[in-house]
Amino acid sequence: MRTIEWDEEKDSIKLIDQTLLPAEYDILECKALEQLIDAIQRLKVRGAPALGAAGAFGVVLACINEKSKSDIIKEVERLKKARPTAVNLSYGVNRALNAAMRGRTTQEMKTHALEEAQRIADEDVAMNKKIGDYGSELLENGDVVLTHCNAGRLACVDWGTALGVIRTAVQKGKRIEVIACETRPLNQGSRITTWELLQDEIPVTLIADSMSAAVMREGKVNKVIVGADRVVKEGVINKIGTYMHAVVAKEHNIPFYVATPLSSFDLKRSYKEVEIEERSPEELIFFGGKQIAPLDVKVYNPAFDFTPFALIAAVITEKGIWSKL
Amino acid sequence: MRTIEWDEEKDSIKLIDQTLLPAEYDILECKALEQLIDAIQRLKVRGAPALGAAGAFGVVLACINEKSKSDIIKEVERLKKARPTAVNLSYGVNRALNAAMRGRTTQEMKTHALEEAQRIADEDVAMNKKIGDYGSELLENGDVVLTHCNAGRLACVDWGTALGVIRTAVQKGKRIEVIACETRPLNQGSRITTWELLQDEIPVTLIADSMSAAVMREGKVNKVIVGADRVVKEGVINKIGTYMHAVVAKEHNIPFYVATPLSSFDLKRSYKEVEIEERSPEELIFFGGKQIAPLDVKVYNPAFDFTPFALIAAVITEKGIWSKL
Repeated sequence: MRTIEWDEEKDSIKLIDQTLLPAEYDILECKALEQLIDAIQRLKVRGAPALGAAGAFGVVLACINEKSKSDIIKEVERLKKARPTAVNLSYGVNRALNAAMRGRTTQEMKTHALEEAQRIADEDVAMNKKIGDYGSELLENGDVVLTHCNAGRLACVDWGTALGVIRTAVQKGKRIEVIACETRPLNQGSRITTWELLQDEIPVTLIADSMSAAVMREGKVNKVIVGADRVVKEGVINKIGTYMHAVVAKEHNIPFYVATPLSSFDLKRSYKEVEIEERSPEELIFFGGKQIAPLDVKVYNPAFDFTPFALIAAVITEKGIWSKL
Repeated sequence: MRTIEWDEEKDSIKLIDQTLLPAEYDILECKALEQLIDAIQRLKVRGAPALGAAGAFGVVLACINEKSKSDIIKEVERLKKARPTAVNLSYGVNRALNAAMRGRTTQEMKTHALEEAQRIADEDVAMNKKIGDYGSELLENGDVVLTHCNAGRLACVDWGTALGVIRTAVQKGKRIEVIACETRPLNQGSRITTWELLQDEIPVTLIADSMSAAVMREGKVNKVIVGADRVVKEGVINKIGTYMHAVVAKEHNIPFYVATPLSSFDLKRSYKEVEIEERSPEELIFFGGKQIAPLDVKVYNPAFDFTPFALIAAVITEKGIWSKL
């Protein structure tokens, strides 16, 4: 199944609970908007593109459960705020809400919202397939590609951006191996990227983030591909650790690629104007319920970092590849 | 107390159990050699210099518990193999054993072994103080120093190598702040380095390893100091992640220092001849008892990496500083 889908029979949202992976594969059913908001806040569904679809399907739930247009509008406002920094969530909500408002009855509103939500989900998959098509030309048979965090199908509706490029290359018959960095502190690399790739039988080796320079020096990697949270005028904002990988890739003359849809482009803005989300110290003080640092230690825990274009060999989008000459 | 000490009253070894830190501070008492071997294998006592003292004190236990010289020799052979890659363990055992063999009665053997073990422990502290004296001249008032893993007093008998340099600088009245990298996969940075520094009231901020490049780009760090497991003819072998920090430090023109006693020098050997210990995949698949990666994922988990001298501004030893012009 896709990361997030509409269940026609039960009139509910089905989504893969990403917090339980890889130990458990569990499908969460959301019939009430409250359940969806909770799932978003707890990162049961995550990844900017996936959140766009989640927002749109959430509007369908509101159309089913609320009696009036004003109630629907009020409810989806709460949904938009579930994670305020994710632009795609508001974008998905707004598109489905605008469609819903064209209906006269609640049934019509639901139908319009659902059509729009399905369109968003399908567009996302199509976009990722195009990114995969363009990006796969950069990969050669036998490449070992290092990736960070999860820019895979679970960050999107399906296929993925960085991992989509790898999937398409494999589909075209190229033999590709992946090195997945665990991605501290939330371990999306160890938990989700490795799981996705094993599902698809693409060879993957897990390493700690700090090992990337060593594996490059040892000649174990020849390309790097990551996703992006936002592309600004001087470079790319992505999961913390991306900049480190880009610097060490340059030191070893390894091309560093970013795969991302144009919807993440925000070229009028400087990276200096983008607020880097700082997450809770507890992510570094506790792990799996175990205390791993003094409770009173000061922690710096930015969720993202900035990588200048000078370190990026190419940005792969659904409209083609931006690359340095 | 020191990391490891002899308890005169109880005729036993006392050591700080490093696996329980920082949640619990517990002193482990070893009256039997078996307990010490277990403590070494479980990393309750760790760090090359500390293992030297542990080996020597272990010989004292053997002198107390065994009846004949041949039994003592047989028992301490097992101790040497508790962690075969740590040179210092064998070194400490051999020195104390040679001293013991000069005795005629078991009481004399014990006395000689204990004197030698105390000498090793005292020498280690004195060496670290000298490293601290030399190294502290490289630090200026107001410096923010990044460190990796634990090259502190708990890796030694007392004071520490990399953290010893910081301690001496602070003692000389310099205001120094530390950024401690958590050091995956065993988190010696978050568990031990932060704890040590908080004990000494030296300001410390914990980050994930992958954040080091970002904090450097943001101007939050101006020096790096780490320890060393072995200094070979082309550079330094140290905890995995050290090389990554060295590469990103160079990119940001931040001096990268190594603090280590001459006993870790092995300049006749090339890094290519040194076997890099690969540790269990479980260190990356489980954390705090929780599964964080698919059970069948392939893992690459080297415990150390190699950093060439070209990236190292100076090596601080107890005899002075080796530095590039």
